[in-house]
Amino acid sequence: MIVVLAGGVGAARFLQGLVQIVPQNEITVIGNTGDDREFYGLHVSPDLDIVTYTLAGVVDETHGWGIRNDTYNTMGQLTQYGNDDWFMLGDRDLATHIHRTNLLRQGKTLSEVTDDLRKQFSLGIRLLPMTDQPVATHIVTPAGQLHFQEYMVKRRCVDVVQDVLFVGVQEAQPAPGVLDALKEADAILLAPSNPIVSIGTILAVPGIHDALHETSSMIVAVSPIIGGTPIKGPADKLMSGLGMEVSAVGVARCYRDFLDVMIIDKQDAHLVSEIEDLGIPTIATNTIMRDEESKAALARKTLEAAGLSF
Amino acid sequence: MIVVLAGGVGAARFLQGLVQIVPQNEITVIGNTGDDREFYGLHVSPDLDIVTYTLAGVVDETHGWGIRNDTYNTMGQLTQYGNDDWFMLGDRDLATHIHRTNLLRQGKTLSEVTDDLRKQFSLGIRLLPMTDQPVATHIVTPAGQLHFQEYMVKRRCVDVVQDVLFVGVQEAQPAPGVLDALKEADAILLAPSNPIVSIGTILAVPGIHDALHETSSMIVAVSPIIGGTPIKGPADKLMSGLGMEVSAVGVARCYRDFLDVMIIDKQDAHLVSEIEDLGIPTIATNTIMRDEESKAALARKTLEAAGLSF
Repeated sequence: MIVVLAGGVGAARFLQGLVQIVPQNEITVIGNTGDDREFYGLHVSPDLDIVTYTLAGVVDETHGWGIRNDTYNTMGQLTQYGNDDWFMLGDRDLATHIHRTNLLRQGKTLSEVTDDLRKQFSLGIRLLPMTDQPVATHIVTPAGQLHFQEYMVKRRCVDVVQDVLFVGVQEAQPAPGVLDALKEADAILLAPSNPIVSIGTILAVPGIHDALHETSSMIVAVSPIIGGTPIKGPADKLMSGLGMEVSAVGVARCYRDFLDVMIIDKQDAHLVSEIEDLGIPTIATNTIMRDEESKAALARKTLEAAGLSF
Repeated sequence: MIVVLAGGVGAARFLQGLVQIVPQNEITVIGNTGDDREFYGLHVSPDLDIVTYTLAGVVDETHGWGIRNDTYNTMGQLTQYGNDDWFMLGDRDLATHIHRTNLLRQGKTLSEVTDDLRKQFSLGIRLLPMTDQPVATHIVTPAGQLHFQEYMVKRRCVDVVQDVLFVGVQEAQPAPGVLDALKEADAILLAPSNPIVSIGTILAVPGIHDALHETSSMIVAVSPIIGGTPIKGPADKLMSGLGMEVSAVGVARCYRDFLDVMIIDKQDAHLVSEIEDLGIPTIATNTIMRDEESKAALARKTLEAAGLSF
């Protein structure tokens, strides 16, 4: 079993490569839920959904969220009723959130609902939320403590980052299956996701960081930072706000106490020795996932780094 | 103040006539909520919405429910997730139910939410649900006890009606303002709505029937039955199932202990003496509301019967 710790778009693309190499039923994805938020009383799980929609082939790749060719009629009317209009939710996408919220209110766990949605899209992977308890990533800024979606989507990352909090994480437990998956994995892959608010959130759930420490599985991470800039999202602002170096080296430092191999982009090949000085063997390769071939090549390289061949 | 007890489509059309004659701020509508039901965890109030949508001019008149030119993309996706597909909810219409459910979950009452939606559509009338507590109209049939929407929409009224129950009504109280409105009304009009599951449900809320008994206001009802057939809906099946005569006389008998004047269709003019034998002065006129003129004429006739002129 290959276990992947996953955030949003970068992870979803990495998984598109992985499923070309590894049968879906040999993949367990542990998804970040710190970005989850209620909109209009509906539970939205952006990172879980982007994985599901992407692997199901229905994702809106232009936006990087939602369902392709969706309409926005429900949201348009909700906005007329004075509701927030800054988090775009298409009509088909809203069906996911209505369905999820309804099942949660009926007493199902987020794990159960996530598995139900996975099956609705006929995916063979196993998709686990990091936890079934509510955890909310907040960004501390001079403008106040903002939910991550408010920081990123509503205010477009303009605020200076002073701190990052995972509200509720101390009371959270890993979702059923998460710790066993980490213990029994043939390899654990950290997708090229935000090391602070995607992978970092998962690592903050009590027990998960320890499990990575203790597992005998090979752990390989792919840097989402290339040449000092993230491919997508605000990783640079978050890392610099927390006093970290915005580079593959900075990413490697986040994972140094459990990481076996670091994969960085070939543009950053000059950083290999610096990361290896941290005691982490490092491979420089193409990590830019432009098409299906480059996604598959990165997945294959990552699996090889974990000592696996398919 | 003119108070109207209202069900769905018939009441909404009657109100379209009334607002041509009476300023909206002199109209209080008390709406049936026994048809309310959750779909996908969302609180749907069909009779309140049809009044709001109709007076706002956005109703889908072809269907008799929902918003004109709505799309069904959310529901299509919900159906793909295995949810019920028999109660059609358009995308813009769903916004109403999402908004309502969200406010209810935040602790607002149905009265408050209904008033919020009324304001969203810039209506000047006052629209009160009969109660803020949950009441569910159930139809007892050989196939079991069915929620009214299941009986009517899902199973298309094919089941023999053995009884009608208003589940929860004994614990319900009239919504704030309902009893005062009935006490202080210049006239109380019973719209041409189903006497069993629209007006009958309202009358079943403890205190409302007594208030009609005790009020000094003139009470005028318009029969929804013409020539033994309802203009719309299953009033005939419900009335005959309960052993009532399916006619304007049967309707008059439902209201005989408080009604001051009955208005029936001119096609039923031969029934005038039979209804007057119940002690209810009766007027035969055109009650078929084909266009704005006939709606206004019926409203004017009803007001005149209550001794009012505008």
